Amino acid sequence: MSEPSGDPVADWWRTAIIDMAPGRIAFRGRPVEELIGTVSFPQMIWHLVMGTPLDGARARLFEAALVAAVDHGPQAPSIAAARMAATCGVGLNTAMATGVNMLGDVHGGAGEQAVALYTDIAARCAEDHALPEAVRAGLDAFRREAGAFIPGFGHRFHKPVDPRAPRLLALVDQAAAEGAVSGRIAEIGREIEGALYAEKGKPVPMNIDGATAVIYAELGCPPPLARGFFCLSRSVGLLAHAWEQMEQGGRNKGPTPPGHRWTYDGPPSAE
Amino acid sequence: MSEPSGDPVADWWRTAIIDMAPGRIAFRGRPVEELIGTVSFPQMIWHLVMGTPLDGARARLFEAALVAAVDHGPQAPSIAAARMAATCGVGLNTAMATGVNMLGDVHGGAGEQAVALYTDIAARCAEDHALPEAVRAGLDAFRREAGAFIPGFGHRFHKPVDPRAPRLLALVDQAAAEGAVSGRIAEIGREIEGALYAEKGKPVPMNIDGATAVIYAELGCPPPLARGFFCLSRSVGLLAHAWEQMEQGGRNKGPTPPGHRWTYDGPPSAE
Amino acid sequence: MSEPSGDPVADWWRTAIIDMAPGRIAFRGRPVEELIGTVSFPQMIWHLVMGTPLDGARARLFEAALVAAVDHGPQAPSIAAARMAATCGVGLNTAMATGVNMLGDVHGGAGEQAVALYTDIAARCAEDHALPEAVRAGLDAFRREAGAFIPGFGHRFHKPVDPRAPRLLALVDQAAAEGAVSGRIAEIGREIEGALYAEKGKPVPMNIDGATAVIYAELGCPPPLARGFFCLSRSVGLLAHAWEQMEQGGRNKGPTPPGHRWTYDGPPSAE
Amino acid sequence: MSEPSGDPVADWWRTAIIDMAPGRIAFRGRPVEELIGTVSFPQMIWHLVMGTPLDGARARLFEAALVAAVDHGPQAPSIAAARMAATCGVGLNTAMATGVNMLGDVHGGAGEQAVALYTDIAARCAEDHALPEAVRAGLDAFRREAGAFIPGFGHRFHKPVDPRAPRLLALVDQAAAEGAVSGRIAEIGREIEGALYAEKGKPVPMNIDGATAVIYAELGCPPPLARGFFCLSRSVGLLAHAWEQMEQGGRNKGPTPPGHRWTYDGPPSAE
Repeated sequence: MSEPSGDPVADWWRTAIIDMAPGRIAFRGRPVEELIGTVSFPQMIWHLVMGTPLDGARARLFEAALVAAVDHGPQAPSIAAARMAATCGVGLNTAMATGVNMLGDVHGGAGEQAVALYTDIAARCAEDHALPEAVRAGLDAFRREAGAFIPGFGHRFHKPVDPRAPRLLALVDQAAAEGAVSGRIAEIGREIEGALYAEKGKPVPMNIDGATAVIYAELGCPPPLARGFFCLSRSVGLLAHAWEQMEQGGRNKGPTPPGHRWTYDGPPSAE
Repeated sequence: MSEPSGDPVADWWRTAIIDMAPGRIAFRGRPVEELIGTVSFPQMIWHLVMGTPLDGARARLFEAALVAAVDHGPQAPSIAAARMAATCGVGLNTAMATGVNMLGDVHGGAGEQAVALYTDIAARCAEDHALPEAVRAGLDAFRREAGAFIPGFGHRFHKPVDPRAPRLLALVDQAAAEGAVSGRIAEIGREIEGALYAEKGKPVPMNIDGATAVIYAELGCPPPLARGFFCLSRSVGLLAHAWEQMEQGGRNKGPTPPGHRWTYDGPPSAE
Repeated sequence: MSEPSGDPVADWWRTAIIDMAPGRIAFRGRPVEELIGTVSFPQMIWHLVMGTPLDGARARLFEAALVAAVDHGPQAPSIAAARMAATCGVGLNTAMATGVNMLGDVHGGAGEQAVALYTDIAARCAEDHALPEAVRAGLDAFRREAGAFIPGFGHRFHKPVDPRAPRLLALVDQAAAEGAVSGRIAEIGREIEGALYAEKGKPVPMNIDGATAVIYAELGCPPPLARGFFCLSRSVGLLAHAWEQMEQGGRNKGPTPPGHRWTYDGPPSAE
Repeated sequence: MSEPSGDPVADWWRTAIIDMAPGRIAFRGRPVEELIGTVSFPQMIWHLVMGTPLDGARARLFEAALVAAVDHGPQAPSIAAARMAATCGVGLNTAMATGVNMLGDVHGGAGEQAVALYTDIAARCAEDHALPEAVRAGLDAFRREAGAFIPGFGHRFHKPVDPRAPRLLALVDQAAAEGAVSGRIAEIGREIEGALYAEKGKPVPMNIDGATAVIYAELGCPPPLARGFFCLSRSVGLLAHAWEQMEQGGRNKGPTPPGHRWTYDGPPSAE
């Protein structure tokens, strides 16, 4: 199975991720028995998805991003839906899938959009624009295409600041000091914070999506994978909550307690 | 939000997993900023889902189980479906959810069933039965309830042996030698191998599900979480394949090449 | 494509549902252009799924069952989840799938279980047991296997009676009077109502699941299809609610209003 | 529950679709027991989703669109995935959801895009442009925004023509002759066919998506609902195929037969 077979059926599905023969499995050229016990789970994630090595301070940054985003509580629609599903007579896998499925453009997409924004600004800097000017141009371009909301900054609940972001940024700074990453994206993120402060007259600090996006962009991953990695991370919370709900019990648990159903605002019933 | 509020609406969703206030997030009592950068991703998974500490050789075993099961190729229906979904105009999250959703009792359940089987046999041993007798009784009981197929042993493709299993077992032995786990479940697993060999007259060696189930049972996790952790692990392969497929392109990619559609075996068409 | 091809790839997917050639589509032997405009949507559903004709009073019964179960409001976890999904930046199809996915054994399975119960009792009658005795034996057998709860009878909310059930039963009676169905299953359902009344000392009337199951069993459909047809019916409500929610707007809408989040009942945070 | 309650919890979920009290259910003001047995399933769909009456020739058109799109065979990724799911140990509901979930922008979106295109062209006509000019401007605008592919026209497999489209168009013409619809959208669709013919020098006839979109646009439904209604229709095929596969059996059925796995095109394995 090591090279294009000429059999159009076998060639219909092609992959550089996994090679297999009876008794043998290799992931991107490395035998599985050599990986088990020697690479960390985050390194395995990176190896499988990105196909490049990830070590030392860079691997620790990636691990920190995965750790930071595991859960934001049953108020989040994805977690709530996974808990509801767990009371409907489906397996844990389906409860988890229910939640992951809801990490769409709005609920799971801010990190992806922030990586795209940072990358765009970095490209402007590389074309010899000064950072403040590149940030200004990047924000303008983003708003023209995608609307007023800058992804990765500000938080409706965590005031004054999302506690995950400064901690993640500190780790990026440390990795940059060690030369493991350039630190250029962190700089861009802070410049965006400054620009938003100047615009609004109040702090609009980086949130979890903005901070993990700094890490993903520093590590060179394409924007859609920021959402992919977020899905891996949040799957942990989905599993934890679905399982806790199963242990609590409940049958067909709706969003609000039975006494508070919903409000009907349609036409009166014919009598 | 730290204790039951007496507000029936707030009490409708209760959790011991996450506590939150503006600017503050704690997972099972530990502030998030203290966890980021200090615990590994597998430790975070265990902390969130199980609520107990996991360190040293035990954490390494858990990590090995997560690393081992990430992917088994586009022949697996879950991976194939995720790749197909990636050509249908949905987000990466939906492609991943499509695959996780399919890790049902048959595709994702063998590890869960194997943990239940091991745990049952361990309980029989604890009631003072000798190991061979407990294994025999456990296998009989399992077959009466669930049919002939013993989960976690034998493999249709990997002959003579699934390369992941011996490597995982070696790590369990090592952890047992260090006193980190009892090694009792590994012993049970091997006794099952022996019993199946005697029955069939040929080797029916432990496969990936049987071997990861040894680890999960040694660590004391309830059977359904074996499936839950498998879902976390396989989500990595789902992401890798969905992303690779998106990069390859394709629109509405079906299972087989266009020239080989399907066979109709119904009534002839009226003319 | 009209018969087994001998090509193992084309034979891998076999179906009696659809036959196709360029410019030609036939469903179970009937050209599509002959079906469009001549069969009703319920008849098409039955034709495709069951492969047998369905006409006159029998078709009207099936249609009534599909009409009756379209929605039970945003308190149902499936509808709530579809509405939440609609605020997360996914397509209408994903919002609908989120809800259908949650119609599991508990949320969507009562009709399936009721068809199995009725069918079992009918088989006991056919073995020459009197109806009351067959009902008693059927209920006992069901409870031994599946627990105390008799599917399809009683309703937590609709007291004294689920308004859909008597209307559906009246239609079954009418079809039985016309000789379109036997009416035997309706009789069984009413005998179960009587037995439960005698047991509990209060009415436990048939609900929507019990009444649609009478129809499905009268029409001869296998138990799992009762859930399948329910999924088709409830998909209508899922679409209506997901679309209404999209029109209302909202981003990442959680289960309860922001002021009422959730209750934390875990360990105190380390300070 | 008939009007805004002032209770912020009850007001969190608002709907004009369903009103409920113990023993009473009304859909958009009509008691359920009055609808059961008197409205057709398509009329119920329209009533619930659109909230307006649909009768006579208009209802028959809607029914024809629902009937026409139920299935396109196991080569379609959604149907294939539902069949695969059916072999993985999940319920029929999950197998169906797997397929619906994949009806994304590419696999399920052509009808939605075609309604938007027709509506745009109709608006240009209403601004006093001649039809050919409006079609030309509409196609140009669509291509600038969405690329070269005009949704709803041409078919990779059905040459020379998709057999469903002419039949659906004939029904629209008949309804227009009766004055039930304007017929204006059908005219637009045919003008697009003409324009594409002139461009390509060969026929690019309307396909199922283009023809059902004519019906949906004639009936005045917003573009996203074209996808929603398609999901309802295709759910029928998903159910039929998932059920047939369950009856055929199979465990973890992958896309291609075991002898034809996949092609590895990655780096060579380290030895």
